[in-house]
Amino acid sequence: MELTVRQEQIIDIVKSNGPITGEQIAERLNLTRATLRPDLAILTMAGFLDARPRVGYFYTGKTGSQLLTEKVKKITVQQYQSIPVVVNESSSVYDAIVTMFLEDVGTLFVVDQNSSLMGVLSRKDLLRASIGSQKIETMPVNIIMTRMPNITMCQKDDLIIDVANKLIDKQIDALPVVREFDKGSGLEVIGRLTKTNITKVLVDLANDDLI
Amino acid sequence: MELTVRQEQIIDIVKSNGPITGEQIAERLNLTRATLRPDLAILTMAGFLDARPRVGYFYTGKTGSQLLTEKVKKITVQQYQSIPVVVNESSSVYDAIVTMFLEDVGTLFVVDQNSSLMGVLSRKDLLRASIGSQKIETMPVNIIMTRMPNITMCQKDDLIIDVANKLIDKQIDALPVVREFDKGSGLEVIGRLTKTNITKVLVDLANDDLI
Repeated sequence: MELTVRQEQIIDIVKSNGPITGEQIAERLNLTRATLRPDLAILTMAGFLDARPRVGYFYTGKTGSQLLTEKVKKITVQQYQSIPVVVNESSSVYDAIVTMFLEDVGTLFVVDQNSSLMGVLSRKDLLRASIGSQKIETMPVNIIMTRMPNITMCQKDDLIIDVANKLIDKQIDALPVVREFDKGSGLEVIGRLTKTNITKVLVDLANDDLI
Repeated sequence: MELTVRQEQIIDIVKSNGPITGEQIAERLNLTRATLRPDLAILTMAGFLDARPRVGYFYTGKTGSQLLTEKVKKITVQQYQSIPVVVNESSSVYDAIVTMFLEDVGTLFVVDQNSSLMGVLSRKDLLRASIGSQKIETMPVNIIMTRMPNITMCQKDDLIIDVANKLIDKQIDALPVVREFDKGSGLEVIGRLTKTNITKVLVDLANDDLI
């Protein structure tokens, strides 16, 4: 929404002097309290100002687009996560590549015999291995995987936007969504959060279709 | 913003009866025009209603989140595109893989001797070729690339959100941003639009940082 000049003035006054009563704001603008009532109602409803009885108006510190984007900041991983695809740590690189094609995913998670997360394999890891000198049919994936503690992970209640930041910072395509088991000694892989999921968030946002 | 019960009632009345004057809305709600003034001001400012002098209020057809997401629908490809990485159509698959690692990209664009777009190579294409039986050192990329007319492309003025939809529909990671030359007989690759770029849009949106 676009604010009027008067509404911007009110925000400035409250920002510097809050908490301040409606009467006091009106005085500073040489207007009556009644004239200001619609503006104060708008600014309060839109979230720019907040009001407490017997205290007055104060500034919430939020700009217009901050309010718009709060919506984005409420979306959690579990609303958008995909099903994870795992391979055992003793699998060969060749088998991992075949699994990647069969399941049509860009990232595989490597687990031990207790189904606990041990590593992550990207297409890039597998491509690098496949042009190397070693035979991929006999090379186990745990030689080439990214392993703990270098795995970037998330949990189902994490915010999508925090995961989006991690994906960009770490320049990776996907994260495992994990849950601790055996009192924290194991990490079960319960999901996969990819840049495709993030792209879907933006599409839903534009379609006014957020879950 | 959250609407009050009365504001929702006003929207319903205007939706069914608009254009309608403030007096008439007040009458239907058994309230005075003065009481309604702040609500009408809020609804008009926020974009739910529009008002024309001597005609009255009418419904804009926009819901709250539609208004929020209009912002997203204005972002164009050129605001977020990355630099494209191209290889010649006579390059070997091996050279393409090396280029992909050196440039650290997930998608390469294949061009002819006039620098016109001929094909697209994904990590998946290169991985498939690398586990095949043919030698990648002598296999030219034009054997394995996705070629015209099957290339999904975009132009710099296209909307990011349309590209996001294409990336999801076609299940691809990146699109070339192209510009016609030689009266449309050639396509110059001027950019690359990836799921990473789209993820960046969401991050900027949440950080209140849109270009």
